[in-house]
Amino acid sequence: MEILVAKSAGFCFGVKRAINEAEKTASEKASDIYTLGPIIHNPQVVERLEDSRVFVREGLDEIDKGTVIIRSHGVKLQEYELARSKGLDIVDATCPFVKKAQDLVSRLSEEGYSVIVVGQKEHPEVKGIISYGPPGIRVVETPEELKGMAREKKIGIVAQTTLPMKKLEAVVSFCVSRASEIKVFNTICNATSIRQEESASLAREVDVMIVVGGRNSANTRRLAEICRSIQPRTHHVEVAEELEPAWFADTEKVGVTSGASTPDWIIEDVVRRTAHLCPK
Amino acid sequence: MEILVAKSAGFCFGVKRAINEAEKTASEKASDIYTLGPIIHNPQVVERLEDSRVFVREGLDEIDKGTVIIRSHGVKLQEYELARSKGLDIVDATCPFVKKAQDLVSRLSEEGYSVIVVGQKEHPEVKGIISYGPPGIRVVETPEELKGMAREKKIGIVAQTTLPMKKLEAVVSFCVSRASEIKVFNTICNATSIRQEESASLAREVDVMIVVGGRNSANTRRLAEICRSIQPRTHHVEVAEELEPAWFADTEKVGVTSGASTPDWIIEDVVRRTAHLCPK
Repeated sequence: MEILVAKSAGFCFGVKRAINEAEKTASEKASDIYTLGPIIHNPQVVERLEDSRVFVREGLDEIDKGTVIIRSHGVKLQEYELARSKGLDIVDATCPFVKKAQDLVSRLSEEGYSVIVVGQKEHPEVKGIISYGPPGIRVVETPEELKGMAREKKIGIVAQTTLPMKKLEAVVSFCVSRASEIKVFNTICNATSIRQEESASLAREVDVMIVVGGRNSANTRRLAEICRSIQPRTHHVEVAEELEPAWFADTEKVGVTSGASTPDWIIEDVVRRTAHLCPK
Repeated sequence: MEILVAKSAGFCFGVKRAINEAEKTASEKASDIYTLGPIIHNPQVVERLEDSRVFVREGLDEIDKGTVIIRSHGVKLQEYELARSKGLDIVDATCPFVKKAQDLVSRLSEEGYSVIVVGQKEHPEVKGIISYGPPGIRVVETPEELKGMAREKKIGIVAQTTLPMKKLEAVVSFCVSRASEIKVFNTICNATSIRQEESASLAREVDVMIVVGGRNSANTRRLAEICRSIQPRTHHVEVAEELEPAWFADTEKVGVTSGASTPDWIIEDVVRRTAHLCPK
């Protein structure tokens, strides 16, 4: 039996970088280290970091000294400033793509554009991005939410990095007739679409498809849906222990892919155990 | 019987301005005056101007001295420079909205954007606009024409002033995923859409609708189509003499509208003759 692992499986660039920063900080500093919110939605990774004295805190009111790591989502400008005024050591692991979206909102506002951020209002990344704009900056996911907007001279548009492209296109298209000038920064990171396309193409090649990742991870669930629509013998697991021998009956080829928050060692575990279950 | 005339009937701002400039120039200068191409697609207006020594010439090779009037469509930058080098007196009656589109192409090119002009390749206005960009600048009417375009860093988009908004929206939407940054200048003039909307609403109110304008004028024909779809008793005429008494049987209200190239005095003629045909 052959096991094929998607090249794009595992952490995206920004998450990998944030975890590396956390591990590096833990190895260099003697004091306690905190992350503002879990560094990633994966309990195994968070536990591992706790063993290295990197603890999760939900807000800065819970941190009075030591080092604070800003995760890949970024934080609000006000939180950043509060951390500084509290004299905390700041390790800024904001994903460079998110940082760019923050900077662009700030730049567009300064240049006199009415800024629209296309994304999910409640997502921590979006809350951070809009904090770089003026109060009352617009956040929408669909053009319908802009109905009734007065005509503007200049509209500037920035997207949440994980936004589906179709949503950005729809909002931009709506705005064309609502302003004399529109400046769009396509800040969408293509890691998600590349992973989805590669997994779909893998699902077409194999008899069984294994999707590894948290059951609470939206991007992993979406990945499993896509694979299942192509190969009905698709199974979504969080850890290797969930794999069942019966899944691999009459199987020549198994495909393995994972969501963005799944660490490499969990993927390796799954590959090892799959090989063990069907050794032929 | 009541006769209602659409407020937006008659020349658009740019055409009105160009004709005023031509008349003013004729009254001030003793020498012959030329327009590069007919100042408007209306033979009556062109004849009137000829009586004031304003003649139509198709190219600068036909003009060696005197005054040249640039019509509202504008001309190519190279033609402008040639007129200057020939020592001609230049009266630039380029529509300010077209001038703006020309300037924006030049500015976007200087700022490093790959410029796309959305419009009709063969239209004189578009030929003028693109002459302000680099050689090989793209002109398209639909996104399909951009298939296979390499991904760009910065795309700048400008539209022909008479483009339907839907066409600009479609091209902009296509470009969102093809560049990191997109700057769109909505250079569409709303004179056409305002005239169409007002005429449609007038057609709903009346028993007979008269659309005045050249039969070779695309915008007049389109206006007649729109009115006819609402009020089947719609008639397209070029001059008052074409009006037939039978059209006004059992009529309480007549609506009159016109294309962008129809002068006021032709509209007034039509109104007068309509009143004469149905005096009750």
